[in-house]
Amino acid sequence: MKITAAQIYKSIEAIRKQAPVVHNITNYVAMNSTANALLAIGASPVMAHAQEEVEEMVNIAQALVINIGTLSEHWISSMFKAVNQARKKGIPVILDPVGAGATVYRTRTARELIETGQPTIIRGNASEIMALADDRSKTKGVDSAAASDTAIATAQKLSETHKCVVCISGATDYIIDREKIMKIKNGHPLMTKVTGLGCTASALCGAFAAVEKLPFAATAEAMAVMGIAGEMAASQSNGPGSLQMHFLDILHRLTEDDINKHLKAED
Amino acid sequence: MKITAAQIYKSIEAIRKQAPVVHNITNYVAMNSTANALLAIGASPVMAHAQEEVEEMVNIAQALVINIGTLSEHWISSMFKAVNQARKKGIPVILDPVGAGATVYRTRTARELIETGQPTIIRGNASEIMALADDRSKTKGVDSAAASDTAIATAQKLSETHKCVVCISGATDYIIDREKIMKIKNGHPLMTKVTGLGCTASALCGAFAAVEKLPFAATAEAMAVMGIAGEMAASQSNGPGSLQMHFLDILHRLTEDDINKHLKAED
Amino acid sequence: MKITAAQIYKSIEAIRKQAPVVHNITNYVAMNSTANALLAIGASPVMAHAQEEVEEMVNIAQALVINIGTLSEHWISSMFKAVNQARKKGIPVILDPVGAGATVYRTRTARELIETGQPTIIRGNASEIMALADDRSKTKGVDSAAASDTAIATAQKLSETHKCVVCISGATDYIIDREKIMKIKNGHPLMTKVTGLGCTASALCGAFAAVEKLPFAATAEAMAVMGIAGEMAASQSNGPGSLQMHFLDILHRLTEDDINKHLKAED
Repeated sequence: MKITAAQIYKSIEAIRKQAPVVHNITNYVAMNSTANALLAIGASPVMAHAQEEVEEMVNIAQALVINIGTLSEHWISSMFKAVNQARKKGIPVILDPVGAGATVYRTRTARELIETGQPTIIRGNASEIMALADDRSKTKGVDSAAASDTAIATAQKLSETHKCVVCISGATDYIIDREKIMKIKNGHPLMTKVTGLGCTASALCGAFAAVEKLPFAATAEAMAVMGIAGEMAASQSNGPGSLQMHFLDILHRLTEDDINKHLKAED
Repeated sequence: MKITAAQIYKSIEAIRKQAPVVHNITNYVAMNSTANALLAIGASPVMAHAQEEVEEMVNIAQALVINIGTLSEHWISSMFKAVNQARKKGIPVILDPVGAGATVYRTRTARELIETGQPTIIRGNASEIMALADDRSKTKGVDSAAASDTAIATAQKLSETHKCVVCISGATDYIIDREKIMKIKNGHPLMTKVTGLGCTASALCGAFAAVEKLPFAATAEAMAVMGIAGEMAASQSNGPGSLQMHFLDILHRLTEDDINKHLKAED
Repeated sequence: MKITAAQIYKSIEAIRKQAPVVHNITNYVAMNSTANALLAIGASPVMAHAQEEVEEMVNIAQALVINIGTLSEHWISSMFKAVNQARKKGIPVILDPVGAGATVYRTRTARELIETGQPTIIRGNASEIMALADDRSKTKGVDSAAASDTAIATAQKLSETHKCVVCISGATDYIIDREKIMKIKNGHPLMTKVTGLGCTASALCGAFAAVEKLPFAATAEAMAVMGIAGEMAASQSNGPGSLQMHFLDILHRLTEDDINKHLKAED
């Protein structure tokens, strides 16, 4: 499978036109920047976590993004309610297992969400993805680690078992659907100095999956857009503060030509 | 009733001089940007939601802003405690019914807060305002919808029944106090691509209501300042990221001359 | 004791090299900006507050920062669990008693955290620090008040009784360890118009205490870096919005030469 600038831009146009509602149950740290990124790309973010309303909110959404970054009991109950409703309704579910491997609580919650929730897309860094299958790898908080062959093997197994797309993000992003692998080599090291850009990537997967029926393509497109907007922003920035600002501006104005110039995707 | 740049600027000067404490029980998404906007205009934001302390916090505040954007049970209890205390103390209460109409839980909570809390000012987009009076209109999340004659009629009825000012915000803001209507035509479409600017508008209503005794005037002034700062910011911006930054800078430095040049208010 | 640019920069280099994990249990308003400041200086922020995981998260951290800005029951229980674990593990604990004095709930919680948690460093404004020892001073929310001789005396007593470093921040920052006092005169008034910079100062104390074994030096270094980055940012800014952006950019690129040029420390 090959990804092209034209295809990516077609999805962006669809997002801008349809303004799909992306329902996020996410962490306190990244809520604001995630909502802003979704608005910048053209989607309609909704944040709602109360058990009394999550199912109803899922019903008006075109995608559901679950992020366990600052998880706690009430929020987890709502996450399960929401993913169950999303499955019934047939909308894509994106899971971001933030910090899986750092604590037993996170690892267990992420695994249970995968088993009962059957997410469409799982996106995390290498150590988070490895933690989803294997107790022995310990992550250092939410930091990313280089994707190793082990991580890729783990992602392939996860993808096989749970019939989902798995994305290992890092300097190179690996989008994995069973035997299929695509690599996106966009992005910039300065992006690791801005909090919540991983969470933003997961949220964008939600926006793209809302308009692009193939989850593998949607994930690749979202990750390419993240990386391209990030490297374009970094080239104009003096540090992580200005990167954040330029990133949103660029997401909002991204053209097919920008994507054409920067896209670094490989089978 | 007529609103002038001189009158608006007089209130800004009062805010800058008195630094009124504005107590916010608001949503996780907009907390940071709301606090920053209140500081930029010259007010003293306080965020506190624990039942153990909300009444005491209301006692040191000059205005209370209630926003149901990410509501849940504990927070709702605190909202009721806080509005009751605000009524006892006689400080203005601003209600932002975020997402009313999107879920039964939001609609019901907003209505109950209006009935028992008797807010001084209610500010929402057209679909939220319509949801406060009528079950039949369904909003698409928290997106704004064009203010229609129906929305205006609903707002007038709300204003009549609950003796409060109702503001329908959008491309044109309608400030309604029973038969009185004022229109503010400031603002810029790019503002809809920044999360939480509606919440910020409600928070600014709190700051203005703290220094301007007439709630109708306070609301009109706050909405004019939002719109003017927003369009001044948009004219310097490449997108929603830079708009956010310029918006705060401009709020902080807003002059009577700026307001004079940009104000578009109509009876 | 004397603080030099070389010494401060050595700690910055250690932070950049070791990327210490700083575990924050902090408020909703400042979470995002705090995480970004920690990343900009080179640390690895972690935010986690669930009782099920805080002890485990403390175990992978090199410093713990407790901030009561938007406290509530569940969060307070987790704060106590976390500080107890930090004491067992021997990592520095920084306490930011946001709003102590504004409500009984805050004052009581802050005092209990000091008594049972034995923080390494306490950082607050003058009215917050005074509230820790004395019921009679009432703060106006979270605003800072000028450090008076009374505040210094209170800080010295606190430091003596609880064997900790106390920092009173303001136009002049006082770092106090029993009889020792250092004054940092860096910073800029525009910093008071950005929400959460006090919280950021406390978080940076965590990053510095993770690499600098002497808490007095770590606190002085962190406060100097805050003030220097803040005044450098202010000199490039049109208001509080751009200050926030430049502040993160500057933290990320701060050189020994920058510190040398700006440092205003006095015994």
